[in-house]
Amino acid sequence: MIFSSDNYSPVPQQVMDALAEANNGYQPSYGEDSQMKKVRHLMQTIFEAPDAAVYLVATGTAANSLALSTLCEPWQTIFCSPVSHIHEDECNAPEFFSGAKLTLVGDSDKINPTELRKSIQAEESRGVHGPQRGPVSITQITEKGQVYTLSEINEITRIAREFKLPVHMDGARFANALVSLDCTAAEMTWKSGIDVVSFGGTKNGLMGVEGVIFFDPEKAWEFELRRKRAAHLFSKHRYLSAQMLAYLENDLWIELASKANKAASLLIEGLRNIEKVDFLVEPKANLIFVTMPAYMHRKAFEKGLEYYTWSEIEGVSDDTPVVSRFVVDWSRSLSDIDKFLEIMRNAAKKEI
Amino acid sequence: MIFSSDNYSPVPQQVMDALAEANNGYQPSYGEDSQMKKVRHLMQTIFEAPDAAVYLVATGTAANSLALSTLCEPWQTIFCSPVSHIHEDECNAPEFFSGAKLTLVGDSDKINPTELRKSIQAEESRGVHGPQRGPVSITQITEKGQVYTLSEINEITRIAREFKLPVHMDGARFANALVSLDCTAAEMTWKSGIDVVSFGGTKNGLMGVEGVIFFDPEKAWEFELRRKRAAHLFSKHRYLSAQMLAYLENDLWIELASKANKAASLLIEGLRNIEKVDFLVEPKANLIFVTMPAYMHRKAFEKGLEYYTWSEIEGVSDDTPVVSRFVVDWSRSLSDIDKFLEIMRNAAKKEI
Amino acid sequence: MIFSSDNYSPVPQQVMDALAEANNGYQPSYGEDSQMKKVRHLMQTIFEAPDAAVYLVATGTAANSLALSTLCEPWQTIFCSPVSHIHEDECNAPEFFSGAKLTLVGDSDKINPTELRKSIQAEESRGVHGPQRGPVSITQITEKGQVYTLSEINEITRIAREFKLPVHMDGARFANALVSLDCTAAEMTWKSGIDVVSFGGTKNGLMGVEGVIFFDPEKAWEFELRRKRAAHLFSKHRYLSAQMLAYLENDLWIELASKANKAASLLIEGLRNIEKVDFLVEPKANLIFVTMPAYMHRKAFEKGLEYYTWSEIEGVSDDTPVVSRFVVDWSRSLSDIDKFLEIMRNAAKKEI
Amino acid sequence: MIFSSDNYSPVPQQVMDALAEANNGYQPSYGEDSQMKKVRHLMQTIFEAPDAAVYLVATGTAANSLALSTLCEPWQTIFCSPVSHIHEDECNAPEFFSGAKLTLVGDSDKINPTELRKSIQAEESRGVHGPQRGPVSITQITEKGQVYTLSEINEITRIAREFKLPVHMDGARFANALVSLDCTAAEMTWKSGIDVVSFGGTKNGLMGVEGVIFFDPEKAWEFELRRKRAAHLFSKHRYLSAQMLAYLENDLWIELASKANKAASLLIEGLRNIEKVDFLVEPKANLIFVTMPAYMHRKAFEKGLEYYTWSEIEGVSDDTPVVSRFVVDWSRSLSDIDKFLEIMRNAAKKEI
Repeated sequence: MIFSSDNYSPVPQQVMDALAEANNGYQPSYGEDSQMKKVRHLMQTIFEAPDAAVYLVATGTAANSLALSTLCEPWQTIFCSPVSHIHEDECNAPEFFSGAKLTLVGDSDKINPTELRKSIQAEESRGVHGPQRGPVSITQITEKGQVYTLSEINEITRIAREFKLPVHMDGARFANALVSLDCTAAEMTWKSGIDVVSFGGTKNGLMGVEGVIFFDPEKAWEFELRRKRAAHLFSKHRYLSAQMLAYLENDLWIELASKANKAASLLIEGLRNIEKVDFLVEPKANLIFVTMPAYMHRKAFEKGLEYYTWSEIEGVSDDTPVVSRFVVDWSRSLSDIDKFLEIMRNAAKKEI
Repeated sequence: MIFSSDNYSPVPQQVMDALAEANNGYQPSYGEDSQMKKVRHLMQTIFEAPDAAVYLVATGTAANSLALSTLCEPWQTIFCSPVSHIHEDECNAPEFFSGAKLTLVGDSDKINPTELRKSIQAEESRGVHGPQRGPVSITQITEKGQVYTLSEINEITRIAREFKLPVHMDGARFANALVSLDCTAAEMTWKSGIDVVSFGGTKNGLMGVEGVIFFDPEKAWEFELRRKRAAHLFSKHRYLSAQMLAYLENDLWIELASKANKAASLLIEGLRNIEKVDFLVEPKANLIFVTMPAYMHRKAFEKGLEYYTWSEIEGVSDDTPVVSRFVVDWSRSLSDIDKFLEIMRNAAKKEI
Repeated sequence: MIFSSDNYSPVPQQVMDALAEANNGYQPSYGEDSQMKKVRHLMQTIFEAPDAAVYLVATGTAANSLALSTLCEPWQTIFCSPVSHIHEDECNAPEFFSGAKLTLVGDSDKINPTELRKSIQAEESRGVHGPQRGPVSITQITEKGQVYTLSEINEITRIAREFKLPVHMDGARFANALVSLDCTAAEMTWKSGIDVVSFGGTKNGLMGVEGVIFFDPEKAWEFELRRKRAAHLFSKHRYLSAQMLAYLENDLWIELASKANKAASLLIEGLRNIEKVDFLVEPKANLIFVTMPAYMHRKAFEKGLEYYTWSEIEGVSDDTPVVSRFVVDWSRSLSDIDKFLEIMRNAAKKEI
Repeated sequence: MIFSSDNYSPVPQQVMDALAEANNGYQPSYGEDSQMKKVRHLMQTIFEAPDAAVYLVATGTAANSLALSTLCEPWQTIFCSPVSHIHEDECNAPEFFSGAKLTLVGDSDKINPTELRKSIQAEESRGVHGPQRGPVSITQITEKGQVYTLSEINEITRIAREFKLPVHMDGARFANALVSLDCTAAEMTWKSGIDVVSFGGTKNGLMGVEGVIFFDPEKAWEFELRRKRAAHLFSKHRYLSAQMLAYLENDLWIELASKANKAASLLIEGLRNIEKVDFLVEPKANLIFVTMPAYMHRKAFEKGLEYYTWSEIEGVSDDTPVVSRFVVDWSRSLSDIDKFLEIMRNAAKKEI
C-alpha cells in the first residue's frame, strides 16, 4: 500500500470521461479550444475575479517558474522558505526561467513575518551591488503539511506590499489547503493579498494539469510569451482544458481534497494513539511527517507499506528515531487507512 | 471541415484505452513507471538501437529545444533552414534552452548540402569573435511537406561529421516521413548519421507526447537534468508513457501515418486535376502547399472548408494568387477527401 | 606599417596626461568619482540632451549588448545587418545579455529601409509562436566603411517608430562618422530618431572606454543593474571617466577623427589612381575595402605592410582578386600614407 | 582621510610608467600583445605552474563569474560563504554567467569544513530534483579580513575533492593574504588543492586588472569563449597586460601588499589600545572590522575620517555599538595611520 506521494495516484473517472468527450472531433490548437473558454470563466467565477488571466501548464514546476519569472527581474531575489519546492526540488528551474536568485527566509516551512521583514530589509542596502528585492513565494499547504491561516497570509502580503513586492502562492496542494481552512478561494488568495497562484491539479486528481492565475491581468501577454518560449504551450491544449474543466465543475476538486483530508485526519488520529509516533509538525491537511523508531519502519515495510523516510533505516539501531512522510491522496479508501493503522499499531510492538 | 493543422485532430481509440488501463492503481512518478520501461525497450527495438537513451516530453518545442541544448554550447550556432520550426515557430525557445544562436542555411525548407558546407565554413573563421560551429538540425518531413531521401540525409550528416558536428532531426512528422520513404526507422536516422531525434507523436495521434532519442547515451544524464530544470519532467509520467506505448505497439504509429499519407495522396491527385491549382513544392506526405486564385479560397471558405492562407484573401482581386496549406491528419476519412475535392472543383469554376 | 585595425593604435598624450592627473589622491568608486560628473555633463552638452543618461563601459561589445538588452525582451528579435558587429563579431554576447535573437535584414552593411520594413512585417504574424519585434540596430560608420546620411537614419527610425520599436546606434566609430557627415552629435542621433547610442572611444584614441547614452533616461536604473550584473561596472571607475573626459574636452575626439579621416581620404585618393585597385564600396571615413590581385598583396606584405585579407593569398594565381581592409586610425601621419601608397604603386607593377 | 575602500586608492608610479611605455607604437589586439606573453610567463613562474592558463579581465566580478561559470553547469550549486562577495556584492553576476545557484555554507566568512561537508552531502540526495553539486568558492582574504591558513585551505579542498568538486579562490586581496601567510603563491593555491584563482590586482594598485589562472589548462578555450561572449575581452588588451606586468615585475605586488598590511597592523595595534574599540574578528591583513560606540564614530567623522559603518549612527544613543570597516590600502603612509589613531583616541574620550 503506497503512501509515498500524491503523484503516484490515478485520476478519477470524471476526468477520464471528460477526456473521452473532448476527444470528439476537431478543436483549434494552442489554447483556442472551446473547453479553455469554459475553464477561464469557471476559474474567474470560483475566484470571484472576473478579470483574472487564467492559464494552464502541465507541471507544477512550470507553473511556479513561469509565474515567478513573470513577477520579477533577473537582478532580483525571490524570498522563500528554505524547504520550499522551488528551492529544493526544481533543479534550478526558477533560476533558469527568471534569472533571479532565491533568498531563504528563516529555517521553517512556514515563513515567519518577522524573519521575512528582516530578509527583505537586508537586501537593497548595497545599491546596485546586491540583488534587488523581488517577489515573495509561499507554499500552501507547505512542504511539511502545515497551512497558513488567512491572517498569516495577510501578514506576509502586508509586509511584501510595504516594500511593493508581489506575492506568489505555490498551490500545488491548493485544494487541500482550502478544505483545511474552510474558506473561499478568493479569501485564501487575492482577498489576502496574493497576486499570482499556481493552482495545482495534478496531485489532486489530474494527469498533469496546473492552473496559473494572475488576478491582475496586466502581465498576461508576457506570461503567454514566456510559456511559449519555455515550450509549455500545448498544441492539443484541449486535453489540458478538458481535465481542468472536469476538475472544477461540480466542485470535483473540493470533493477530492475533502476525501483526501478526511482520510488523512483519520490516519493522524490513529497515529496519535500509537505511543512511539511523534509528529514533526502538527499536520493540517494530507501531508503527514512523523518520527518513529527505525524498527517500526522496518516492520511497516515488511508488511507492505510504502513511503519515504528521511534517513536510512538499515544499519541503525532499533530505536534510532527516523522521520517519514505519509501522503494521503484523494483515492485512498477509509479501509486503506484502517489497514495502514493496523500495520503501524502492530509495528509499534517492538517485541513482535 | 478542418484541414488547418494536425494539431486540431483527436486521438485514436487505442490511446484512450491505454490511458484507461494506465489509470488503474498506483505507479511511481517521474518516469519510474512500468510503462516507461516498455516504451524504452520498444523504441530501442524499433530503432535497432539497444543502447539508445529514450525520453518523453509533452511538446515538440520541448523535444527540439532540450535535444539541441544538450548537443551544443551557448557560444555556438545551430545550422538550420530559414523556415524551420525551431527558427520560426518556437518563440526563441531553442535560444532560451541552449544559449546558442541559429544560422539560417540557404533559402529553402530542405537544406542544400553545398549551402550547408558554405555556412559551416563561414563560421569559426574569426577565432573567438564569431559564434562557434554547433549542431545541424533538419526537419523530416520539412515544414513545406518535402521529405529528405536517405541519400540526402547521408550527404548532410557526412558534411556535419567532417566538421565534427552532431545532427538533430526534428521529426514532428517522423511517421509520415517514414511511410513516405518506406524505410526503417534506423535507416532514416542513425544509419544515415543522425545523432538525436525528436520523435513526434502529437501530430500523429497523441494528446501531447514526443520522444527524444539519443543513439549515443553519453549525454543521457545531462538531458535528464536539462529536462527537469526546464520543468518538462512529468510527475505522473505514466500518462505520457501509456500513450506512447499504445502508439508504438502493433505499429499503430505506422498505421496512422499511412492513413494520413494515403488520404493526402488522394487529395494531391485530385488537386492536380484542377487547372487553377499549383503546387508550391511537390508534396511527399501529408502537408500540402498550393497556390490558387483568391476567389477560389473565398468560395472554399464559404462552403465550410477551413485551412490557413499565407496572405489575406479579402480586399484583393479575384485572380490574385494566394498560397494555402492543407494538412491531412490520421483521422481524415476518404469521404472527407472526396467532399474537399468536390468543393474545390466547384470553387475553381469562377463564374459560379 | 600596420593598417590592420584601429584597435592596434596607441592613445594620444592628452589621455595619458588625464590619467596621470586622475591618479592623484582618493576618489569614490563605482562611478561616483568627480570626473564622471563632468563626463555626464559634457556629454549632455555635446548631445544637446540635458536629461540623457550617460554611462561608461570598457568594451564595445559591452556597450552594444548592455544597450540592446535594456531595449528588448528575451522573446523578441533585434533587426540588424548581416555583417553587423553584433551578429558577426561578438560571440553571441548580444544574445547572452538580452536573450533575444537577431534577424538579419537584407544582405548589405547598410540597412535598406524597404527590406527593414519587410523584415519587421514578417515577424509577429504568428502570434505567440514567432519571436516578437524588437529594436533595430544600425552601425555608424558601418562595418564596411559606409556612412548613413541623416536622411537615411531618419528613414530607418521612422519605420521603426511606426512599429513602436526603439533604435540603437552602434557608434564604435561614431566620431569618424560625425566628421564625415559634418553635422552635430544631436543631429546624427536623437534628432534623427535614435534612442540609444554606443559612443565609441576605444578605436579613436582611448584604452578601452565606451559611452552608452540613453536619450530617454527612463531605463537608466535598469541599465545600471544590467551593467553591474554583467560585471561591467568598474570599481576604480575614475580611470574610465578621466579618459573619456580628456576625449571630450576641447573636442579632442573630433580632432582625432578628423585626422584619421583626412589621412584615409589621402589614402583613398592615392589608391584610386592605381589601376588594379577596386573599391568594394565607396569609403566615406577611415575604413577602406578594396579588391586587388593576389600578387599585389604578396608584394605589399613583403614590403612590410600589415592588414587583413578576406581570403588566402598564398597558393592562388597572381591575378586572383582578393579583398582586403585598410584601417586608418588617428595616429597615422601623412608620411605613413605616402609610404603606404608608394609600396602599393610599386606592388601594382607586376613585373618588378 | 579615507579608509572606506581599497577601490578609492590611486595606482603606483610603476604602473603609470608601464602604461606610458606600452603606449608606444602599435600592438596586436585582443590579447595577442607582446606584454601578455610576458605576463603569462611571469605568472606561470610565480605560481610554479608552467602549464597554467592565464587570462586578464578588468573587474573582480568578471574574474569570479567567468571562472566559476567555467567550472560548473547551470543545474549545479556553488558552495560559498553567506558573506562572500559572489553572493552579496555581484548583483547575481555569478548566477547570470553560470546559470547555477549558490548554497550558503554556515554563517561565517570563513567556510567551516564540517559545515561544508554537511552542505555538500545535503545536495544530490534528491536525484534530478535538487541542484547538483558544483564548485566550492572561498575568498582569501575573506570579506571580514580573516585569512585561511594553508591547512585550512587543504582541509576544504580535500573535502571538495572527495566529492570530485573543483575549488575556486576569490583572491581579490590575494597579495594581502600571501603576505599575511608568508608563503608562496603555489603553496596558497594549487599545492593546497585550489583549481582556479581570481588573482586580484585592482584593490592592490592597478586601475582595473584581474588575473584568472587555471592550473589545469583543459578548460582554457572554453574560458576564452566565455570571456568574449561576456564582453570582457579587451581590444586594446596591451593596457591591461602592461599594468599586470608592472605589478608582477620586481615583486611590486608583494611590496604594495606588504606596505598595506604593515600600515594596517600599526592601525590594529593602535586600536587595540583604545578601550572602547572591539574587534569583530581578529584582523589578519588590511581589512579591519571593529565595534565602537556611536559617539566615537560621530566624532571621528567630524574630524574628517571617512569609512563605512554597518548601521546608522545618527538618531541612536551615544553608546549604541556600531560596526565599522577600515580598509588600509597600499598608498597609506605611516603618518596617515598616526593621524587616524590620534583622531580615534580623542574620539574615545566621550566628554570632549
